[in-house]
Amino acid sequence: MQVYLDNNATTPVAKEVCSELLPFLNEQFYNPSSSYRNADPPAKAVARARGVVARFFGGEGVDSKEIIFTSGATESNNSAIFGALKANPGRRHLITSTVEHPAVLEVFKECKRMGAEVTFVPVDHQGNISLKDFVRALRPRETLLVSIMYANNETGVIFPIENLSRLTKETDQGILFHTDATQAVGKLPMNLNGNFKNVDMLSLSGHKIHAPKGVGVLYIRRGSAWRPIQIGGHQEHGRRAGTENVAGIVGLGKAMELLWEEQAGPVLENIRALRDKLECALLERIPYVHINGRDAPRLPNTTNLSCHFIEGEGILYQLDEYGISASSGSACTSGSLDPSHVLKAMDVPFTAIHGSVRFSLSRFTVEEEIDYVINVFPEIVQRLRNISPYWDQEKNIPRQEKVILCSE
Amino acid sequence: MQVYLDNNATTPVAKEVCSELLPFLNEQFYNPSSSYRNADPPAKAVARARGVVARFFGGEGVDSKEIIFTSGATESNNSAIFGALKANPGRRHLITSTVEHPAVLEVFKECKRMGAEVTFVPVDHQGNISLKDFVRALRPRETLLVSIMYANNETGVIFPIENLSRLTKETDQGILFHTDATQAVGKLPMNLNGNFKNVDMLSLSGHKIHAPKGVGVLYIRRGSAWRPIQIGGHQEHGRRAGTENVAGIVGLGKAMELLWEEQAGPVLENIRALRDKLECALLERIPYVHINGRDAPRLPNTTNLSCHFIEGEGILYQLDEYGISASSGSACTSGSLDPSHVLKAMDVPFTAIHGSVRFSLSRFTVEEEIDYVINVFPEIVQRLRNISPYWDQEKNIPRQEKVILCSE
Repeated sequence: MQVYLDNNATTPVAKEVCSELLPFLNEQFYNPSSSYRNADPPAKAVARARGVVARFFGGEGVDSKEIIFTSGATESNNSAIFGALKANPGRRHLITSTVEHPAVLEVFKECKRMGAEVTFVPVDHQGNISLKDFVRALRPRETLLVSIMYANNETGVIFPIENLSRLTKETDQGILFHTDATQAVGKLPMNLNGNFKNVDMLSLSGHKIHAPKGVGVLYIRRGSAWRPIQIGGHQEHGRRAGTENVAGIVGLGKAMELLWEEQAGPVLENIRALRDKLECALLERIPYVHINGRDAPRLPNTTNLSCHFIEGEGILYQLDEYGISASSGSACTSGSLDPSHVLKAMDVPFTAIHGSVRFSLSRFTVEEEIDYVINVFPEIVQRLRNISPYWDQEKNIPRQEKVILCSE
Repeated sequence: MQVYLDNNATTPVAKEVCSELLPFLNEQFYNPSSSYRNADPPAKAVARARGVVARFFGGEGVDSKEIIFTSGATESNNSAIFGALKANPGRRHLITSTVEHPAVLEVFKECKRMGAEVTFVPVDHQGNISLKDFVRALRPRETLLVSIMYANNETGVIFPIENLSRLTKETDQGILFHTDATQAVGKLPMNLNGNFKNVDMLSLSGHKIHAPKGVGVLYIRRGSAWRPIQIGGHQEHGRRAGTENVAGIVGLGKAMELLWEEQAGPVLENIRALRDKLECALLERIPYVHINGRDAPRLPNTTNLSCHFIEGEGILYQLDEYGISASSGSACTSGSLDPSHVLKAMDVPFTAIHGSVRFSLSRFTVEEEIDYVINVFPEIVQRLRNISPYWDQEKNIPRQEKVILCSE
C-alpha cells in the first residue's frame, strides 16, 4: 500500500487542475503579451486566474491588480521582504518570528547582514507566539516590516494574524505587515477586507494546494510602499517582469477555485477527523510520544509527533519501507542532521527533538491510509527503540531514570 | 490559414516535451527534496535534465552543478547581474550594450540608480557592436561585469561573444562576462569549454526553445564571484531556493535534447532557407522596404523589416486579420507606442522605425506559411500606404521628395 502523508511538502496536482492547464501546454501556447487575437485565450486565462485569486481573498474589494503571480512562495517571500526594504530606505527595523520558513528566516538574516536590525520574536513550548514580546518589538517610525507566517509548516500551529496585524497598525500605520500563508491557504479564513484587512502582503504557493510546482502568488495591497525585485518587463502590471507561466497560473487559478468550493463543504472536517483519529490512536498505542503544538490552535491536516529516544531519520526510513511517505521535523532534506529550528524554538527536549515526524493530510487522504499507519507505526517505533541506546529493551522502558519529557 | 511567425516571442511546446513532462503533473508529483523513495523519480528527472543542459553546453567539462534552473530568462538575467553586484562590492563599473533585452537593460539602469557606473556600448546602423567602444569601456580592476547578448531578439543580429569575452578576460581576468543567450540557444554554437570558454554566466529561457513558460537556466562558471538572489532553501545546490518546477525542468531538458539532435540535421538550414525566401520575395515585391541588420551576421530564423511610411501596429493588425501572428519592432506589447529601443540604437530613420515588423520562424514553420505571407504582405503594405499621410496614392510614391532611407 502507498500512503502519502506529506502534503505540507507538496500535494498531488488535482485532476481538474491538470486538465484545465493542459491546453496551455499545447495549442494555446501563445505569449499573453502578444497583440494578435491568437494570444487572447492565454491572456484571458491569466486574467481569469487573477480574478479567481482576488475573489478568493475577499471578492469585490480585492483588486486583481494587487495579485502578482510569481514562481512560488519562496520568490513571493523574498520579493515581499526585499521589495519593502528597497522602497523604504529610511526604516531599518524588521520583525519576524523564530519559527518562520527558511524562505523568510534566511531573507531576514540576509537583511541583517545588509545592515538592517531584526527582532526575532520567540514562541512558547506550544509554538504560540509571545504577544507581549511581539508588541514590545514594534517601534513606531522605525519598524519597516513585520513578517509572520499564518500557520507553521512543521507543526501546523496557527499564529493570530488578525490580532498581530491589528496591533501592528495600531502602533504605526506605516509598518508593513506580511504573512506567509503558504500552509494556511484553503484551510483557514483569510479575507483581505475582513480578518486580514490589516495585512499588506501575503505569500502562497501553488504546489501546496494541488496546483503544479513553479507558481505562486504575492498579494500586495494597493498603496503599499514596495518596489519590484524582478525587473525588465511590463508583466504583472510592471511588478514582476518575465513571460507569464501561463499553464502554472491557470492551474493555480483552478486549484483556488476548488479550494473555494471546498470551504463550503465537509472536506476540512473530514481531514481533521482523520488527523485526530491518527493522533489519538498513536498516542494511545505508543508510550513516550507527544504531539508538538498540541494545545495550540493548529491546522486540521498536520500532526507533528515526537517519539522520544529514537531518530526521525530512522522512523522515516522505516515508514518508507512500508510505503508511507512522511517527513521529519529535522531538516533532513537538506542533508543536514541539525534538529528542526521550529522544534528548537519551542524548546522541545533533546530526547524528543530528534525523533519527530510530521504527517500532513490532504483532501485526497482516505481512512484506509490512516488505519494502515495506525497499524504499522507502533511496531516501527518499538523496533527502533529496541536498538536505541536510550531504551532498556528488556524492561521496555527508557534507560535513563530521569527522562525529560515535554512540558505538556 | 493560421501562420505563426512570432517564435522569438514564444514557441509551441514540442509534443515530445509535453509527453515527457506530463507524468510530473500527475503521478510523479513528489517533492524532489523528500527522502522517501517515491521522491526519487522527480529528483532523478531534475538531475537528468541538469545533465542534459550541461552536456548541451560542452559535455564532460561542464559540471551540472554550474547549471541553475530558474523561472525563466528574466530571472536568470536579474540574478546574474544582481548576484555579481552582491558578491563584488569593491567594483562598481558595469558594461552592456544599448540593444539588450529590457531584462538586462532595466537591471543595469537600476544598478545605476543604486550607485553603479554603467557604460552602454553603442551599435552601428547594422546593429553591430562597436568593438573599439567596447574595448575602450573595459577598465582593469574597476569593471565588475560585462553583459552582452548573443543574438538580438528584435533583429536577430549576432554579437561576437567569443571575441568580446576574450577581450574582456585579456583586459582583466577578474571581470565577469555574462551573455543572454535566450534567442541564440540551439541556433548558434556555444561551447563553454570552446568558443565560450571565457563566458562566466549565461541565461536562457525554456519557452523560446519549445519548452513551457516559467522555466529557464542560469549557467554560472565554477569559481565565479556571484551570490544567490533568491534564498531560503537548499535547492539548486544552494544557489536558487524554492521547490523545483519539476515538470518545467523536465520539459526544458527534453527541449534541449531535441535541439541537440537538431544541430546535426538540416533543421536550421531549412529555417534559414525559408527566412531567406521570405526576405527576398518581400524585398522584390514591395518598394521602400529594408531589412534591419541585413548586412550583419544574423540568426537564421529572424527577419526584421521596416516598411517605410506606415505603422507597425497597422501592419500587425492587418496580418492578424489574415491569421498571421507576427510582432512589431516597437514595444507594442506593453501598450506603449514608443519606437523600439533597438532600432533607435541602430539609428533607423524616422519614416522606417515605426513601420517595422518582425517575422521569426521555428522548426515547425512550413513553406506554405511563408508563401502565404509572401502573397498577402505586399497587399497589406499597399493598403496601409494608401491611407498614409507620407504616401501619394495617386502617383503611388512617397509624398515627400526627400525620403530618408536606411544607410544600406
